[in-house]
Order: sequence, then structure tokens, then C-alpha cells
Amino acid sequence: MKVGDKTYRTVDFDNGTIFLIDQNALPFKFRIIRSNTYLETCHHIKTMTVRGAGAIGATAGFAMAQAALQAPQQSYLEFINEAKKQIAATRPTAQNLFYALEKTYNSALISPQEAVKTAVEIADNDANQCQKIGMFGQELISTGCNILTHCNAGWLAFVDYGSALSPIYLANRNNKQIHVWVDETRPRGQGARLTSWELMNENVPHTIIADNSSAFLMQQGKVNMVIVGADRIAANGDTANKIGTLEKAIAAKYYNIPFYVAAPSSTFDIECKNGEDINIEYRDPEEVLYTHGLSHNRNPARVLSSNPGAKALNPAFDVTPAELISGFITEKGIINPDRTSIGILKISQ
Amino acid sequence: MKVGDKTYRTVDFDNGTIFLIDQNALPFKFRIIRSNTYLETCHHIKTMTVRGAGAIGATAGFAMAQAALQAPQQSYLEFINEAKKQIAATRPTAQNLFYALEKTYNSALISPQEAVKTAVEIADNDANQCQKIGMFGQELISTGCNILTHCNAGWLAFVDYGSALSPIYLANRNNKQIHVWVDETRPRGQGARLTSWELMNENVPHTIIADNSSAFLMQQGKVNMVIVGADRIAANGDTANKIGTLEKAIAAKYYNIPFYVAAPSSTFDIECKNGEDINIEYRDPEEVLYTHGLSHNRNPARVLSSNPGAKALNPAFDVTPAELISGFITEKGIINPDRTSIGILKISQ
Repeated sequence: MKVGDKTYRTVDFDNGTIFLIDQNALPFKFRIIRSNTYLETCHHIKTMTVRGAGAIGATAGFAMAQAALQAPQQSYLEFINEAKKQIAATRPTAQNLFYALEKTYNSALISPQEAVKTAVEIADNDANQCQKIGMFGQELISTGCNILTHCNAGWLAFVDYGSALSPIYLANRNNKQIHVWVDETRPRGQGARLTSWELMNENVPHTIIADNSSAFLMQQGKVNMVIVGADRIAANGDTANKIGTLEKAIAAKYYNIPFYVAAPSSTFDIECKNGEDINIEYRDPEEVLYTHGLSHNRNPARVLSSNPGAKALNPAFDVTPAELISGFITEKGIINPDRTSIGILKISQ
Repeated sequence: MKVGDKTYRTVDFDNGTIFLIDQNALPFKFRIIRSNTYLETCHHIKTMTVRGAGAIGATAGFAMAQAALQAPQQSYLEFINEAKKQIAATRPTAQNLFYALEKTYNSALISPQEAVKTAVEIADNDANQCQKIGMFGQELISTGCNILTHCNAGWLAFVDYGSALSPIYLANRNNKQIHVWVDETRPRGQGARLTSWELMNENVPHTIIADNSSAFLMQQGKVNMVIVGADRIAANGDTANKIGTLEKAIAAKYYNIPFYVAAPSSTFDIECKNGEDINIEYRDPEEVLYTHGLSHNRNPARVLSSNPGAKALNPAFDVTPAELISGFITEKGIINPDRTSIGILKISQ
């Protein structure tokens, strides 16, 4: 996607170097971080320079390719085995990471060149799938539509285009005169920071709201549809996504507003029978108790925004039951939230 | 209520001086502000040293009494008329303010002593009503109950005890082994700041959560009931309260969790036929875009927590339809959310 006059991908690779948009610096600073070794890349996955399922997957693939390129000939296998272990240990829960890592490792067993080829294919595939999600999804968006989104499922979470935001970009480019309500998405504020930054770059009219405001706007008739991303989708359609998604889905149902989940078919995990099989990550309570931002002298700062000494609970995801979902927007088309449709999608993957 | 070893009211009055707990300094600093003149008191209402319907009402009554005490004998009427105008102009929407002001003014027309007597009665009445809300409400709370609350409807919003928190305090003192989920309540964070501070002082076990987490906790069976306060209740039971209340009510309905609104009968406004008659205040978008707190060097600070240059919308309240409410906890008992019950409550007021 474009930032200013130039086109970027969230993750890029050239001649052994990985280029990452520094997501810890956004939205206050746009900068590209170069990573020359697989260990450096591991550090960037761990510290969330790069985040989002698709983007993490592509980065892990490139990291494995880097390792293959770095490996000394006399201890090639030993080196890439160690690298595989290190890369796998960066983010234990990101599903795409293991898929990309395994696939690139298998190619690295043939040659470093094969590993690079595979990693590039994985990244290109991610971008292509997201572009197709945009094409299918934009058909659901009518002119003048007010769309609510939660968290960030934009191009920063993938290699390019994004999932939930991809149809929005296309609808906007097609002059559909849309407007997006952007949930702040506490505690980490991915909506207020990343989604708003993405939409501003693409000149998509949008307004940030406190997470508390969405049902109110639905009640007022100011939300025509909801589109969110997904972290994992079970075989029956139950969907894990950023905490708060469930609350938006329940409110949308109450007001009869279509609620769509946009995700590539790789996000569907038929090993999970239903939502109860999905493990919810609990993160550091400090994310709730403190808030990060820019201080008055324009330096990054964090403030204690809660009662000192108070306890907090910080579930990072929730599971929206399939019955609240109108449909899934995938790279193969719009599908129903049921076992049969998801089964067919996975067979054709 | 107690703070440390001492007992305080949110608003107190002695010999012409008003004592206010400085709510702008909480939860980081507990301090009492003394106000010696009605103009000083006006300033404190405006700048939200004191906030919450009941507390504002009591303060306005005391301010009118202060004016009567200050007024020179030769221009008594002129002085108190001007004071009435000034006090009325502090917060144009707080309903209790006008009620207390009018009543104390009428007494001031007799004598300063009568004005003081009336203002003291108004404050005492507020405290007594809240105490009764506690007694009726705590009967709804079973042992081991997990209660969710939103925003701050504690004693800081009234003269003492509070509305939504009053039953919680009593249940806790009665060793009912309760636990409270405290919604952060973005954008102003009254839950994370004031409610948590109140509960900590009373040793009520509680946990702060991002507003996004409540439906998730309901789904997990970790919320047994919801109690919130109210800013205004229409004749049919539709209830205006802090933004986000509606979303909690919809989620509670979806999971069949009792949802109670605690409020003294003065909060019921039968001039409002239903929720559509209630005007929603929109506040400065900066409240959404920025977050206040304590910096690392323990000074008050605010950070820009959103994408620079982004637009925000900041509705301060929403209206929960009566059909989502299990009952109202009032100083007269628990009543049903319908016209007849509310009509009877108001007749007996």
C-alpha cells in the first residue's frame, strides 16, 4: 500500500535483507527497519516490530531463508536446525508462523535458493489472498455505507492489503463514499493507532470512537455493517479475534446489522471443533493499567491511567459464536458460518 | 465513607465553608479542597473538582447557602439573585443542580439560616437515599457473587454511599464474599480511577478490565449480575447513563444475566416520555484521542494515544431501553422498569 508517494509492503525481502515497517513506532513515526540476520529478525518478531498473523508468518519464512543463506557450508544442517528452533520460539501462539517456518525449512533442506523462493511465495500468496478478500468483500459494501471495524486487520497485519480493511480500501477507491467507525480497541489501541493511520494514508473518511460507543451508534442507525478480522476460526465458524469483537457482534445482532469476518482460508483451523477448543491468551495486566502515547514534548511515554495498586485482567482475545456472524469474506468468496461451507473451503485450499 | 481511618463525605459544609474531595486529583492524590465563597464553589463545579449528579446537587445547594451568608444586608436580594444565576451557569445539564438550587434559593428568601438548613437537608437526604438503595440492593446479591459495574456510581458521585456501589459495600460488609469487575470506562476512565479507588478503600475485592472484556467474562460465566447507575430515567424506564452502559446491557441480555440500575427517585424524570426525549451530550473529541494519567516521575500528564490528526466522536452517554433492564434499585425498594411502577414511585416521592 502507499505511504505518501511510495508503495510499501509490511514485510519485504531483498538479497538476504528483511525490511519491516516498525509497528512499535507507528502512528507517531513511520520508519523501515532492516534486518540482516535471522537472529535480528527473531528479535523483531518477539518485540512486535512486526505483528499480525499474516505479517508474522511471512517474516518467519524470510527469517528461515536468511538462516539458510547465512549457514556455513560445513555445518549447514546444524545451523538451519538451530535457526528453526529459535524462530519457532519467538511467538508461541501465532499459527501462521509455524506454517511458514515448516514450509521454508523443508525447502532449505534442498538449498538456500529454494528456501528464498518458498518464503517469497508465502509472502506473495498472503498479499494475493488479501487482495481477493478485498474484491469479494467490496461487493457487500453499498454506496454511502457506514462500516464499523475493531482492532487492526489492515495491511499492517498482513503483507499487503489486509483482511477486514481490504474491502474498505477497494470500496473507497471505487468512490462508494464510505465512512469507517474505528474502535479505539483498548487496551493496546490498535484501532486508534494502526487502523486510523492506515485509513488516513488511503484517504478513507473515518472517525475514532471509544470502544464503549459502538452500540450507541448502532442504535442511532449510524452503522450499516461491521467487518472485523480473525485470529483463528474453528470448524463450526466460532471465531477468535481481538477482545471486544464478541461485544460488537452481540450488539450488531441486537440491532440486525450484518457482521462479517474477513480472513484468508489459512485462518480456518478445522482441528478446532468449536470455540471451546480455542485457547485464549492472557497478557500483562499492565497493558490495561497503563496507556502508551506521545507526551507533550512529542516523546513516546506511558502514563498510569488507573488507580495505583489496582489489579487488572487482560484477556487478549474473545470467541464470537458462529450464530452471530453473517458470513466469512475469504479469498475464495463469501461463505456461510457453518461446518459444511468451512469444510468445502478447506478442501479446496 | 472511610478513607484510611477517617470518615468523609464527598461534599461537606461547616460554618460557611464547603469541603470537597478533589476528584480531579484522584486516584493519584487524596485531598480536600476548602471553598469559602460561592464564586469559588462555582469554579469547582465547573472544573469538576466535584462531579456526579447527587454530589453536584448538594454542592449547588451549599453554594446558594454560602451566597446567602455572604450577602450584605443592604443588598441581600440583589446579591442572592446574582449568585443563583452564577451557580445555575456552572453545569447546564446536571438536573439535580437546579432542583437543589431552587429549593435553597427559596429558603434564602426567608433567611441565610433557612438556606443553610435546606442545603444541609438536601445533602443529608441524598446520603440517606443512597444508604437505603444499599439496603434494598444488597438483598439481590448472593454469596460469592461476581458483579460487573460501569463508570462510577459510587459515593464520589453522591454525598455518601453512592447508588450502584452502595449495595456492593453493604454486601461486602456482610461478608458475602463478592468480587467486582470494574470496567475501565473510556474515555475518561471513571471506573479504573474512581470506582477502583473507592472499592480499594472499602477492601472490596475487584479487578479492572478493558471495556472490551465484559461480554467475554459473561460468556465464561464469570459475571452473575450487573449494577450500574443512571443520569436520567425516562417515564417508560429507558435509562441514560455513561456511554457503554447500553453495550453491557445488550450483552447481559444475550447471556441472561440480571442487569440492574440503581438510582434515587429524583433521577426519574417523568417529563421524558422515553429515551428519545433524552438529549445526549457530546464532549470534546480530545477526551478520546488523549489519555490522562501519572507519568513515570509521578506527575500528572496526558499522552496522545491515537493517530495524530485523526478525528474522533465522543458521545458521553447512551440510552439503555427498558426491555434490557431487570429492575431499578431505588430508596423505596426494587421496582419494575415500566410506566406504572415508575409512576407510583414518583407519586410517593
